[in-house]
Amino acid sequence: MTTIDLQPIGKRVDVPAGTNLLDACQQAGVELVAICGGAGVCGTCRVRLLKGQLSDFSLTEMEELTDAERAAGIRQACQVEVLSDIVIEIPPESLSATQRLSIEGREADFEWERSVIQCFDIETVPATLTDLRPDTTRVLDALRTNGGPFDLPLPTPYKFAFDSEAVKSLAGILRGNDWKARVVIRHTDEIVAFLPPKTPVFGLAVDIGTTKVAAYLVDMASGETVAKTGAMNPQIAYGEDIISRIRYINDHPADGLKTLQGRIIETLNSLIEELGKEAKVKREQIVEAAIVGNTAMHHIFAGLPVKQLGDSPYMATVGEALSIKGRDLGLKLAAGGTIYLPPNIAGFVGADHVAMLVGAGLHNVNETIVALDIGTNTELSLFHNGRHWTCSCPSGPAFEGAHIEDGMRAAPGAVERVRIEGDEVKIHTIGNVDAVGICGSGILDAIAECQKAGLLTPKGAFTGTHPRLRGNGTAAEFVLVPASRSKTGRDVRMTRKDVNEIQLAKGAVRAGAEALLDVAGIKAEQLEQVILAGAFGTYLDLDSAIAVGMLPRTEQTRYQQIGNAAGMGARRMLVSVEQREIAERIAREVEFVELAKHPSFTKIYSQALLLA
Amino acid sequence: MTTIDLQPIGKRVDVPAGTNLLDACQQAGVELVAICGGAGVCGTCRVRLLKGQLSDFSLTEMEELTDAERAAGIRQACQVEVLSDIVIEIPPESLSATQRLSIEGREADFEWERSVIQCFDIETVPATLTDLRPDTTRVLDALRTNGGPFDLPLPTPYKFAFDSEAVKSLAGILRGNDWKARVVIRHTDEIVAFLPPKTPVFGLAVDIGTTKVAAYLVDMASGETVAKTGAMNPQIAYGEDIISRIRYINDHPADGLKTLQGRIIETLNSLIEELGKEAKVKREQIVEAAIVGNTAMHHIFAGLPVKQLGDSPYMATVGEALSIKGRDLGLKLAAGGTIYLPPNIAGFVGADHVAMLVGAGLHNVNETIVALDIGTNTELSLFHNGRHWTCSCPSGPAFEGAHIEDGMRAAPGAVERVRIEGDEVKIHTIGNVDAVGICGSGILDAIAECQKAGLLTPKGAFTGTHPRLRGNGTAAEFVLVPASRSKTGRDVRMTRKDVNEIQLAKGAVRAGAEALLDVAGIKAEQLEQVILAGAFGTYLDLDSAIAVGMLPRTEQTRYQQIGNAAGMGARRMLVSVEQREIAERIAREVEFVELAKHPSFTKIYSQALLLA
Repeated sequence: MTTIDLQPIGKRVDVPAGTNLLDACQQAGVELVAICGGAGVCGTCRVRLLKGQLSDFSLTEMEELTDAERAAGIRQACQVEVLSDIVIEIPPESLSATQRLSIEGREADFEWERSVIQCFDIETVPATLTDLRPDTTRVLDALRTNGGPFDLPLPTPYKFAFDSEAVKSLAGILRGNDWKARVVIRHTDEIVAFLPPKTPVFGLAVDIGTTKVAAYLVDMASGETVAKTGAMNPQIAYGEDIISRIRYINDHPADGLKTLQGRIIETLNSLIEELGKEAKVKREQIVEAAIVGNTAMHHIFAGLPVKQLGDSPYMATVGEALSIKGRDLGLKLAAGGTIYLPPNIAGFVGADHVAMLVGAGLHNVNETIVALDIGTNTELSLFHNGRHWTCSCPSGPAFEGAHIEDGMRAAPGAVERVRIEGDEVKIHTIGNVDAVGICGSGILDAIAECQKAGLLTPKGAFTGTHPRLRGNGTAAEFVLVPASRSKTGRDVRMTRKDVNEIQLAKGAVRAGAEALLDVAGIKAEQLEQVILAGAFGTYLDLDSAIAVGMLPRTEQTRYQQIGNAAGMGARRMLVSVEQREIAERIAREVEFVELAKHPSFTKIYSQALLLA
Repeated sequence: MTTIDLQPIGKRVDVPAGTNLLDACQQAGVELVAICGGAGVCGTCRVRLLKGQLSDFSLTEMEELTDAERAAGIRQACQVEVLSDIVIEIPPESLSATQRLSIEGREADFEWERSVIQCFDIETVPATLTDLRPDTTRVLDALRTNGGPFDLPLPTPYKFAFDSEAVKSLAGILRGNDWKARVVIRHTDEIVAFLPPKTPVFGLAVDIGTTKVAAYLVDMASGETVAKTGAMNPQIAYGEDIISRIRYINDHPADGLKTLQGRIIETLNSLIEELGKEAKVKREQIVEAAIVGNTAMHHIFAGLPVKQLGDSPYMATVGEALSIKGRDLGLKLAAGGTIYLPPNIAGFVGADHVAMLVGAGLHNVNETIVALDIGTNTELSLFHNGRHWTCSCPSGPAFEGAHIEDGMRAAPGAVERVRIEGDEVKIHTIGNVDAVGICGSGILDAIAECQKAGLLTPKGAFTGTHPRLRGNGTAAEFVLVPASRSKTGRDVRMTRKDVNEIQLAKGAVRAGAEALLDVAGIKAEQLEQVILAGAFGTYLDLDSAIAVGMLPRTEQTRYQQIGNAAGMGARRMLVSVEQREIAERIAREVEFVELAKHPSFTKIYSQALLLA
């Protein structure tokens, strides 16, 4: 048997060597587009081989694929046989159903005083032999008369930096618009764009997750989101988690970083194009971006070295906020467009956590609050008595469906809700289609329901009897969906090992929270709010999460699931100077707690592993 | 007969169609390297065909030249016959004698308080589990302890921008140097480089002339020039003067600007390499540049549109000073290196004139001074009573040897001094070799000497008799070097038409000066100083220039020839914040005088044309 790892879905399937790849995908419950039904002529089932061995190129592939495509590992799934364990990347256009993206979040009203971007419509007079002021001087003189970004009188001599790429358009804009122009000013001192008068300007907010990317197009004047979209992070093909991507980069010193950076920028550029089309916004109108991600995503995006991030003590090289011209990274903003990257706190508490806190309005907090970003890596912040602690714990990829026997990401066909009612097991899948596998929120439910039904001990061993429970000891497993009703024709199960994987993951989250409470010297009951952010934190069933002991125990009314708060934070920082200052103050003032150095962490962690 | 125009020398020669190109160059007195003596095997006589028709590629050329070279118009001069009027570019490596460059200038002592670039050697502690501050935070904390670029106490929160390319090197520098580093700060607020501790840093100052480029490598701490070099401006191949280069760009809207910009940047990059080798300075040590040029050179270098510069009223689009990252232009500075471009005053009074004034220390002037930059275009400044006027006059390329029958640029073999002693005519050539042609300073001498000998009327007609004077009326000409003693085997002459060309050129300069005097309401006698800058202004014979009436008449002791003051100004602005502020103040406060609008300019100009 060989194992096929299908990315970015995260579904694995074992098939006999020699199986046709299109068939194997179907057995895994992953539907590729295959218009011609496997005849090899439509080219819609294209995939990319990342690792392992397939049969030689078929004659059809020699005809249908270019040399460059073949060199890049592109194959037509219907044409090839699987010869070894392989990893396959399925491009979005080859996938008939798309994965659930995480672009929604609670939209909090917010107002701001100081805009990152300000526009001024100016008017000057045509050049004549008696008025030979250069175009830039005309612009400054016109700004002077209306005060520009300042209250009159202007500071003297007031000084603007002209972005060297943006200024190339000035001559044409003035002469093409009757000597009128819209002047776009960043932070009161840099002129970053010239546009025809009254042209609205926009900004791009992005949350680059290890798995998913969420992108928003925002009106810079109103702060309103005019379009949003998402995509999978294409870097998954080079490693599911951060550490394996860093390893890939270390193993490919010549071009590894450039490759991973290039893939994410390519994805962002397609998202920009998609957003622009939807909102009818041109590239030259997108004058600013705010992009957040964990420290590794941040460093790779900016092309910063990551080696020190992968070795103990896991150091960020850049903590401070960065402003980068879009052109320096090949990001298709306006010619003079700038990217703001908020600060990172540490190697495993990045700008996305800062953005989450900004998005949730967690600054100057007087209440006692814990806020969690649950993912492959979970970041937690605790506010108490005017202080702010943060820590990071390696919750691992189990919540993403990895390391789970029948696990998969939150894509169509994933079991996401489970209820055990007597002998009956009710499930709900994403997209309401036949079950393919189980995702994080589904398995959390399954464990909680088994507990309630008396089928699991606190240590995670199956016990008791149930029609769906079979096998004994470590070989015990609970069948969620029998083969007859699944899409793959195989049982969708939860094994003893799966339960233990989830214990490790939820234990890490709980231990992080308990350690912070311990550092602050308080008890869980004192928590006035428990805030869950991020996709998994939003889709999980709160009852189940509390039942399995993932979250500290306090009154349920104190819990809040707020969705993609990092995306909200990115949008706030995109438009508002104050929100950037808040982010920078958070990073400067937070106290980072290194769990590995916490004296009683081992004890806390072993307690947290229990299902209780 | 066909005309061969040899660039960048500026020498023209007429030869019968079918002449071998290497022979034709020899007839023109231009010596190509031709190691194999024309056998076609050494490839040292390579030239580039810019315009016109040559014979087909020979078999030798098909072997010796690559496809790309042939496509780019590269030929081996010994292998081809001239079939039509042609323009040929001779690369420096094919030329056996190099042209005189203009990199010297009076080195004025100068001191400054505020450096553009400041270096701080910092030391931090290794990262541990109890100290996980990101690298950038360590740098800021270390700067905080020694005050960095500020007097203690530091402004709070003090804020630096990290250049996004420079910061990529920080992780490696800290870990490779025992957690020590040199932090390079620009203007107190931007960190532009990290280097091993105590590494000295340098800057590049460049004067891009229409014809020649001068480049200097400067120690940023001391302001000392550690190496200097020069080159021809390769854009000559696309037009000898500014207007024809703008026309080339207008005629090639797709890539004309990119081509000309690319050629000058390519040249600057070789000069950087040359300077670096000479001074043993690496690219990453060159953290700043100050680059000056006339408005057209400035705009082309920065990739700014030039169309409006070529059409009346000849407008600069950028007046204000610009800071551009070297990487935005492909200039090979340190990763975070920045280029400062001083302000332009108008379409024909550019940053090079501002740099000349800065280099000559002409600011806050209380004396009455006129300063001239004589060239294809001549810029003049007049200081009087605390005011400052400037104007530009189109003196044309005659001083560069263009439009002169036997004219050439100031290259070896050019007659640069002429003395008529009775029947005898004494000449001196550049490089002290046999005469090839005559350059600007030579022809100015020849006219002045003919005047003195009574052979020229004030209107520029030949009169009287002399063994060297032949022909009558408009066909009259004066033989400076008879064929028997010239390198070309032909007479080197000055024709009646040549005299008129020089009258037009010197008349423009004189008229500009007179118009400024008129605007200021003063007489030439009131001038306390007359300052001549630039190559031609330096090499010309002052007596001759006054004799032909090119300069306003005042006591000769009041004249000063100061060499490449623009280069000196660039070096000052490279290192000193105050000098940049002076440049920006000059551009803001100067009063531009448009000669075409001056009420009595026609009268002034017709008077100025006379040889008197």
